[in-house]
Amino acid sequence: MKRPLILITNDDGIHAPGIRYLINIMNDYGDVVVVAPDKARSGSAHAITLESIITCKEISDVSNVQREFSCSGTPVDCVKLALNQILDRKPDLCVSGINHGSNSSINVIYSGTMSAAIEASLDGVPSIGFSLLDYSSNADFSESEKFIRKITERVISNGMDIGVALNVNIPKSKSTEEIKGIRICRQANAKWEEEFEKRIDPKGNKYYWLSGKFVNYDNKNDTDEWALANHFVSLVPVHTDRTFYNLIPQLSEIFSDEL
Amino acid sequence: MKRPLILITNDDGIHAPGIRYLINIMNDYGDVVVVAPDKARSGSAHAITLESIITCKEISDVSNVQREFSCSGTPVDCVKLALNQILDRKPDLCVSGINHGSNSSINVIYSGTMSAAIEASLDGVPSIGFSLLDYSSNADFSESEKFIRKITERVISNGMDIGVALNVNIPKSKSTEEIKGIRICRQANAKWEEEFEKRIDPKGNKYYWLSGKFVNYDNKNDTDEWALANHFVSLVPVHTDRTFYNLIPQLSEIFSDEL
Repeated sequence: MKRPLILITNDDGIHAPGIRYLINIMNDYGDVVVVAPDKARSGSAHAITLESIITCKEISDVSNVQREFSCSGTPVDCVKLALNQILDRKPDLCVSGINHGSNSSINVIYSGTMSAAIEASLDGVPSIGFSLLDYSSNADFSESEKFIRKITERVISNGMDIGVALNVNIPKSKSTEEIKGIRICRQANAKWEEEFEKRIDPKGNKYYWLSGKFVNYDNKNDTDEWALANHFVSLVPVHTDRTFYNLIPQLSEIFSDEL
Repeated sequence: MKRPLILITNDDGIHAPGIRYLINIMNDYGDVVVVAPDKARSGSAHAITLESIITCKEISDVSNVQREFSCSGTPVDCVKLALNQILDRKPDLCVSGINHGSNSSINVIYSGTMSAAIEASLDGVPSIGFSLLDYSSNADFSESEKFIRKITERVISNGMDIGVALNVNIPKSKSTEEIKGIRICRQANAKWEEEFEKRIDPKGNKYYWLSGKFVNYDNKNDTDEWALANHFVSLVPVHTDRTFYNLIPQLSEIFSDEL
């Protein structure tokens, strides 16, 4: 049997510790090809590059088993380039991350890491985004490894529906408490509030830094926020159908003269 | 009664003909404040600016009834800035567009115009993204106007659930056929294929332009693609819960030893 072909990307950039850790793990499972942004691209969401060109350069490093490509585009551009131009066959798996920081609940809509996984899922590639709840560049990924391996092995053996990706978030390691296990969850109803720091530049003009406070409005125990707060790994299946079906009957009534 | 406060944004930039057309219409319905990108930002999706600062300048033009702000950020940044820093109260409506080109089916995940409307909806602002299926900068918006007015009036009078935005796409005008009406739809199952044009720069290096072919896999008559192909305006309610609930039972079984 052929070794699985594994595409790896992220949104923190090709040199981020998180993706280096993920590459090391994935080399045990298949032939790895990395196509990742040449710089940090956090908050890229599902953005694509339409107004300018995209460049993509192979990195030559004889100490690497894997092939690596550094790309000027967004995480989603990286996946599109990999699937359309770089890889000679469809990969058996796409993993994205390990993201430095949470992509749970509402963060999934802003996340380049998750959007990259979702883009691959549109082509029928089983896809997983991994995130650790630690923004630090020297985050400790060691406690994550066991769960990354378990989830990867089960996705490789079970496959995944077209258009579905897994959003996996891992609690920050605490020496006092081990991670308790994996929970299959729904996305919690949460949002960001009070989102800017206003500053004045040397010429007296206003400018802004995006910041904010995360607020969870959802106290049920079937959500990703609940799982993470209770020191479980959260696993949410996400898809690309944005239709809010529940509202169709009401809208059909409001526009009934049109139907 | 107070006149409604209406926030307008887009992803084609503050000077695009589509947003100018939309501003003219919306001035009939309330007090308009425009906060839009200072340049074209197509394909921005739900991207936010985390790695650099955001600037935002008020445009002084005595011929305008509305206030206008030109912003260095993405469409979603524009909405966040408007809601958090610029407006002194929550707007009664957010409209985004008129987009030059389709945001139907899978395009919704790449669209900055739709993501801006969705961002406003997270704060409980009734929100609509309008798109015309004509990429041309001198597109004819006149046939769209009747439908934009009708949908706007009904959203103002009926409101909208928190976290729901309307994705409205309008067929290109054909002199031979009038638009037949409005259809409430689900997002069609479609995708982009063969997505790059590879070129060689003057130094002999490869670079890419994102392009591609739109392929619709969904021939049912309840989709936005069906409506548009049959010369109806399509209206899809979209939301921010990305959870694919149907897969939760199967995943729970695969990870049953963890639960």
